[in-house]
Amino acid sequence: MAAAFAAVGGKWKLTLIYWLAHGESHFAGLRRRAAPITPKVLAQQLRELEADGLVERTETGPVPAPVIYRLTPYGETVLPVVESVRLWGEAHLERTHGQVAPSDRMSCGRAVA
Amino acid sequence: MAAAFAAVGGKWKLTLIYWLAHGESHFAGLRRRAAPITPKVLAQQLRELEADGLVERTETGPVPAPVIYRLTPYGETVLPVVESVRLWGEAHLERTHGQVAPSDRMSCGRAVA
Repeated sequence: MAAAFAAVGGKWKLTLIYWLAHGESHFAGLRRRAAPITPKVLAQQLRELEADGLVERTETGPVPAPVIYRLTPYGETVLPVVESVRLWGEAHLERTHGQVAPSDRMSCGRAVA
Repeated sequence: MAAAFAAVGGKWKLTLIYWLAHGESHFAGLRRRAAPITPKVLAQQLRELEADGLVERTETGPVPAPVIYRLTPYGETVLPVVESVRLWGEAHLERTHGQVAPSDRMSCGRAVA
């Protein structure tokens, strides 16, 4: 059963899918947003998402040209799941810390509209 | 935003919540089911779930008496989220491998009924 949770269950996968739902990004951009995550772990999570067909990786030229990541149409089928986790998580943050950053709330609304 | 995903975003957290939705369990029972996970990682994930109020830990006596883990009522509020991830994950497994173990399907149906 654990296998059913594996494709999106990595610590950063839902967050990465959520970010990519706002638009494609190059690796450096994801890395900046994912501050505490190491580049190695970030690359590994992206590789797994790519292997599962959720994320597509496009090289824009020879190294060091940026590599662009975007959600595939199949990856977009995860967005309702991401939204259900996000809504619960946001309520959880409010319960725990009593607040959620307004900008987060807004960008979330757009992400899965 | 990543914080909203953290409480259930650990690699094993959704799976652990799903298992505990079927009934309380002692550590050794969870460890048996979570075959590839190390005891250290399992204990860490359980500690985080407990710190977030999702799981409750009861010592049944002095060591080595079993320690029982169960979902809290608050932990049960995550079950619709677990179910949305599970349904997507099961469809993903069918897409990827063309099959899902029937016993899994049955136990899942009961879990969140």
